[in-house]
Amino acid sequence: MAKTVQVGILGFGTVGGGTAKLLLEQRELLRQRTGVDIKLSYICDRNISDSRGFSVPNEILTTDLNQLLTDPDLDIFVELIGGIEPARTFILKAIQHGKHVVTANKALISTHGDEIFAEAEKYGVTVGFEASVGGGVPVIKALREGLAANNFHAVMGIMNGTANYILSRMTDEGADFESVLKDAQRLGYAEADPTYDVEGIDTAHKLAILTKLAFGVRVTPDDIYTEGISRLSPIDIQFAAELGYTIKLLAIARSTDAGLDLRVHPTMIPSEHLLAQVKEAYNAFYLIGDAVGKVLMYGLGAGRMPTGSAVVADILDIARAVSAGAVSSLPRLPAHSLAPLQKRPVETVSGRYYCRFSAMDRPGVLARIAGILAENHISIASVVQKGRGDTESVPIVMLTHEAEEASVQRALGAIDAMDMMAGNAVVIRMEDLSSY
Amino acid sequence: MAKTVQVGILGFGTVGGGTAKLLLEQRELLRQRTGVDIKLSYICDRNISDSRGFSVPNEILTTDLNQLLTDPDLDIFVELIGGIEPARTFILKAIQHGKHVVTANKALISTHGDEIFAEAEKYGVTVGFEASVGGGVPVIKALREGLAANNFHAVMGIMNGTANYILSRMTDEGADFESVLKDAQRLGYAEADPTYDVEGIDTAHKLAILTKLAFGVRVTPDDIYTEGISRLSPIDIQFAAELGYTIKLLAIARSTDAGLDLRVHPTMIPSEHLLAQVKEAYNAFYLIGDAVGKVLMYGLGAGRMPTGSAVVADILDIARAVSAGAVSSLPRLPAHSLAPLQKRPVETVSGRYYCRFSAMDRPGVLARIAGILAENHISIASVVQKGRGDTESVPIVMLTHEAEEASVQRALGAIDAMDMMAGNAVVIRMEDLSSY
Repeated sequence: MAKTVQVGILGFGTVGGGTAKLLLEQRELLRQRTGVDIKLSYICDRNISDSRGFSVPNEILTTDLNQLLTDPDLDIFVELIGGIEPARTFILKAIQHGKHVVTANKALISTHGDEIFAEAEKYGVTVGFEASVGGGVPVIKALREGLAANNFHAVMGIMNGTANYILSRMTDEGADFESVLKDAQRLGYAEADPTYDVEGIDTAHKLAILTKLAFGVRVTPDDIYTEGISRLSPIDIQFAAELGYTIKLLAIARSTDAGLDLRVHPTMIPSEHLLAQVKEAYNAFYLIGDAVGKVLMYGLGAGRMPTGSAVVADILDIARAVSAGAVSSLPRLPAHSLAPLQKRPVETVSGRYYCRFSAMDRPGVLARIAGILAENHISIASVVQKGRGDTESVPIVMLTHEAEEASVQRALGAIDAMDMMAGNAVVIRMEDLSSY
Repeated sequence: MAKTVQVGILGFGTVGGGTAKLLLEQRELLRQRTGVDIKLSYICDRNISDSRGFSVPNEILTTDLNQLLTDPDLDIFVELIGGIEPARTFILKAIQHGKHVVTANKALISTHGDEIFAEAEKYGVTVGFEASVGGGVPVIKALREGLAANNFHAVMGIMNGTANYILSRMTDEGADFESVLKDAQRLGYAEADPTYDVEGIDTAHKLAILTKLAFGVRVTPDDIYTEGISRLSPIDIQFAAELGYTIKLLAIARSTDAGLDLRVHPTMIPSEHLLAQVKEAYNAFYLIGDAVGKVLMYGLGAGRMPTGSAVVADILDIARAVSAGAVSSLPRLPAHSLAPLQKRPVETVSGRYYCRFSAMDRPGVLARIAGILAENHISIASVVQKGRGDTESVPIVMLTHEAEEASVQRALGAIDAMDMMAGNAVVIRMEDLSSY
């Protein structure tokens, strides 16, 4: 006779619908797999009349959140409304009522996770947040459990499906950002206000969560240098391809002797690397541990059913523990054991750089640019100068050897100030991904 | 004050050494991450004097297995000697003494898993076997926990590092099997007797384990059609590349209306697919679930530290549960709830085929071959006939449209019997991997 664990969902939108569908339609499969009967007791939203394309028992629909909070038989509270408030307040209330919490809320967990985890420890409940990163890809479980024997050298990845979809189409079609974005909005891949996705903010949220788990440090998205893809030009994607590189919006958390190097920005990576092959709206996580070596996990990072799959996985873990009477068997929440962040300032990071200069087609320009780079101790690995088109300016593309970010920025400032330039330099950071 | 869980390792070879090193050197990290202190109490082997390149307290070394079995304080018994016997007997004894078991033994788990899991259920202990498949890649955890909300359409992958190393070098260098194998043996990538790895047997063991978990059926390696890579020729790898395909030793478990399609064989897959990019000794698992869609997990499938990482992950899961006093919180072992296997006979499987015929260079050969294929309802998608080299025979390569295995075998038998042929036909199955 399987024990019953009761679940209430707050938020009957996309992910709430997927989660409810799985809990209702796969109830018998889940019972067989876990030995626990998981009963969906409530679906709560402000407007609960919407049909979601599958059958929902009318009696579990409610607009009254207090029903969930005060029902002593409810074990797991699933927050799927997103955003900081009122989600934060509702989750804290649920914890204070002794409910376990499952959430897909990356904005909240990345910024207020410590507060929530500490409150959960205080009340002896747990918080599952697998769905906050990577949609259906169980990357949080991998970091916390499957690879828990490792010290991590680096955690990297393509963590935003919208940005990757846009970049993939820009790469494949040679199209510009604005036109692909419009098409992505029309097709439902991008929101009306795409800022979170295309400016790297969503990616930084996810990287903050993974950094906390992998490196055991206190970190928020504000600690991460973040740059989006909205200013990328097709010409740079094309030059990159000619040089054997693909541009991806890469999230990077890397352990260095001088602290954690935390960055989100468009990055040129070798086209033959697995990460470069991650197309459309897919995500990929590249984890480098001292014992396991390189691990890559790939899948859909968003969407109703993939994210619902991750929410239900968290529910199952908690349900097994609740049913066994031992919530302390679940992985610990990262709260009071976190170390302060030792961050490596982005200016001190060294790497290789792609630089494109728009120079007037006049004698001596190349010599001046090369001279300024040399003064800043930046050595050039290769130069591509294409013949002039129908404009006054010519693009000069240079790949540098290893150089320090601060030197590169200083040099570019000086070059941009030259009177022979037709526009500001474009710089894209490169990652060879070979040192792991 | 962290609770202490005691571990004993049987088998101080490659993986035993890696596991011991992690438990000894990462003890504090593991304690921080799990809240449980994991003490390595015994390392047992017949010859225990070997040094393993790291410091081992002398008092934990023993040659007496009974010390582990009869110590009432020992919680977890780690079997790392491999092979069926005496590993099976030792594991059953450990279970009967109330010990939890962790093992990396794919041969044993794939053939005697049901017996072991049933015994473990009877004695209220658990058996961890993450390290039996995929080395450090937490694919078993993903199937059982992270993706547990899914019905699986298919589980596929490159599951043997030795075979993939050899195939990758044959592909990149145009070298033949025998010479790459010799080199792989010299470099330590292949064993003196490579049969298990190159003939697909090891891959079938792993596929049997994953099939049991993903589809909940009773299955052994004998249920899996298995063909290795030892008869592959560089010429077929080269033709495949020209046609846009890469040959991999692919394990396939696929749910069909007519039962589970279970196969291990060299397979032509599109060169742009992620699985085709998996090189060297890496493994990759391609899981297709109804909710999550496509998930790929990639990493080193063997080796001292990657496999040690997986063994320790299992130890950590069990240690958390033991420490919480609730082993029933761990995922259930697949034992009495398994359904009988409904297997789809390989002869009834449909797919596309690559066929290479060695024909005498005489008029009418192509017409005869095409005629026999047509009689067997096999239609041809494309033909490549290369000019003759310095031999009497010419290779004719054909890609078929969708055809049934039985028809293809019947046609090839008839073609091989033709007097105008200079050798038997070579056939390689194709997977477009696009229908998921």
